[in-house]
Amino acid sequence: MRAPAFGFELLASDGAARRGRVTTAHGSFETPAFMPVGTAGTVKGLTPEQVAATGAEIILGNTYHLMLRPGAERVARLGGLHRFMNWPGPILTDSGGFQVMSLAELRKITDEGVTFKSHIDGSRHELTPERAVEIQRLLDADITMVLDECTPFPVERDAAAKSMALSMRWAERSKTAFQVRPGYGLFGIVQGSVFEDLREQSAAALTGIGFDGYAVGGLAVGEGQATTVRVLDATVPALPEDRPRYLMGVGKPGDMVPAVRRGIDMFDCVLPTRSGRTGQAFTRRAALNLRNARHQDDPRPLDPDCACPTCRDYARAYLHHLFKAGEMLGPILLTIHNLSYYQELMAGLRRAIEAGALEAFTAAFERRLAEGDLPAL
Amino acid sequence: MRAPAFGFELLASDGAARRGRVTTAHGSFETPAFMPVGTAGTVKGLTPEQVAATGAEIILGNTYHLMLRPGAERVARLGGLHRFMNWPGPILTDSGGFQVMSLAELRKITDEGVTFKSHIDGSRHELTPERAVEIQRLLDADITMVLDECTPFPVERDAAAKSMALSMRWAERSKTAFQVRPGYGLFGIVQGSVFEDLREQSAAALTGIGFDGYAVGGLAVGEGQATTVRVLDATVPALPEDRPRYLMGVGKPGDMVPAVRRGIDMFDCVLPTRSGRTGQAFTRRAALNLRNARHQDDPRPLDPDCACPTCRDYARAYLHHLFKAGEMLGPILLTIHNLSYYQELMAGLRRAIEAGALEAFTAAFERRLAEGDLPAL
Repeated sequence: MRAPAFGFELLASDGAARRGRVTTAHGSFETPAFMPVGTAGTVKGLTPEQVAATGAEIILGNTYHLMLRPGAERVARLGGLHRFMNWPGPILTDSGGFQVMSLAELRKITDEGVTFKSHIDGSRHELTPERAVEIQRLLDADITMVLDECTPFPVERDAAAKSMALSMRWAERSKTAFQVRPGYGLFGIVQGSVFEDLREQSAAALTGIGFDGYAVGGLAVGEGQATTVRVLDATVPALPEDRPRYLMGVGKPGDMVPAVRRGIDMFDCVLPTRSGRTGQAFTRRAALNLRNARHQDDPRPLDPDCACPTCRDYARAYLHHLFKAGEMLGPILLTIHNLSYYQELMAGLRRAIEAGALEAFTAAFERRLAEGDLPAL
Repeated sequence: MRAPAFGFELLASDGAARRGRVTTAHGSFETPAFMPVGTAGTVKGLTPEQVAATGAEIILGNTYHLMLRPGAERVARLGGLHRFMNWPGPILTDSGGFQVMSLAELRKITDEGVTFKSHIDGSRHELTPERAVEIQRLLDADITMVLDECTPFPVERDAAAKSMALSMRWAERSKTAFQVRPGYGLFGIVQGSVFEDLREQSAAALTGIGFDGYAVGGLAVGEGQATTVRVLDATVPALPEDRPRYLMGVGKPGDMVPAVRRGIDMFDCVLPTRSGRTGQAFTRRAALNLRNARHQDDPRPLDPDCACPTCRDYARAYLHHLFKAGEMLGPILLTIHNLSYYQELMAGLRRAIEAGALEAFTAAFERRLAEGDLPAL
């Protein structure tokens, strides 16, 4: 059987917002989509069956972590990342660049690429655009991301321009290195910090090279939501309509809704999983810290309107007990709930776009945020 | 609907070994049975659905942990332990005595009971036979264990006799305190250390009081398997045939098989769960330490003959990776496998007893143990 072509199907739109479907070698996923982060070959604390039960159809893997441990060649020998971690659906891998900047030691960036020392064992590694593409092919990622330089924030305009230009040269080399195979896609990444004209130049450069999808990088780094939205307003219209658009590392529920309204199709963020492990639950009305003693006698579920297994089967009092006792099941159940909340938010956005009712959906969402105490937008 | 009476049905036997069924207020379970330990209201790392999927039909809760946190009265207000932890099946709770001896501080034992300081927050508590029964009623345990004194090991005969006598007085008080309700049972505990005549006296005393089941306590404390077996040979024949028999805190696979052959029906032990969390897997042929580098490229499952989800879906190389990376999924998947191994061992014993083939089953089991390197018996 011939694998399907990698592709994006636009099913409906509501203003700039899009309801679509991305097809990959390992199946399709509906957009807008949220991708749980499976850093080291596992969405922390959950089995793949539990991840799928939250509604997730695609997950993200981190090239930086996987290249260091267990190693890309090893994963390839073991049949690729899908088989290794037992996730049969689509996988997007990042290029490793972001984690090199945030985790590795003794980084040195040249036009050729970046050299660094592993934060795990101090071993020396090199990541070039070509090697990043090769690693992601070894992992068997359905969606490969180009290596880019993560422009620091805040940054002067000249430095941002220089960094963006380097990322565009790397994008070109990534495209050359990428082996075209049915069902596999390569995404470019728009850079340019908070400077609209740089973002437009970057989008034009990438569109000229031609990618299967386009990501917006370098946001959600502390610039604030108003700036994020301003950059998206300058960037998204410059991207092809027939390709998926991915806002990297975003985000908070209140950041994703305005991004969808501006035509973003894909998201990833550690927030629902990481917050779940520390005892924070997202609900439609509020963010709850389950470590707080006020939950110790509360027989209610986290969110009475949530259909997830955690809300169906457990009281807040029990979840509080698990966190107080340091039991693994606390992080597990909260991660299940938080991912379910994120997926239900995406499903709600998809339904609203299909119905042409995104404005009403957004108003209701923002009203609940204003009444509750969800983390700052 | 009237709850069923608590009871034991003897379905088949093979020599002294029994194939039975225990009926409780929350359903029945087949014997010989292994009960996973759910210390603080959770079998560590697993959802109740995952526990049930291993084949477990009854779990054990620890009175000591639950009385200190979240507190028995709180669990009762929240609907009892079944609802609190979302385990709808039978639950046996211990009396708290064993953990008081091993975990609490400033223990003081009198004829009245035991006072101690919590290892969690230093608060003072008292456990009497009556309070231990009351706590287990508040937890809604299907099977309540009498409070007993855990005789130290090794111990002189006189001290063992005195300790056993105290436990028998406490057993009598426990029987008086226990409220008879349909489907709920109270088990006595035979003590007497390694002294056969004390064990016989203890069994006779308990039988005279009359319990719904009989446990053998104070074994697997370092006396060695030959002594364990000698004590069982003296104790089990002195217990009523029409009641279930429970060997507390046992054990290793190689300890359970000879105990079943001597007429034991129920077991509990932290070994499969605790070992799973530290990277040790039980298989039919060997005990594997998944932290060992020799597994890093091994595409094989833990045990090719095991039907559990871990062996169905994951390579040893992946499990090794999870433990090296400190990922929660490592302990989760190994706990699932180890509990599945224990449950499959019990199912094999049940089938062998039904078929009158326990001798052949035991011979094959011991041959594999001798060829492999399972932990010492």
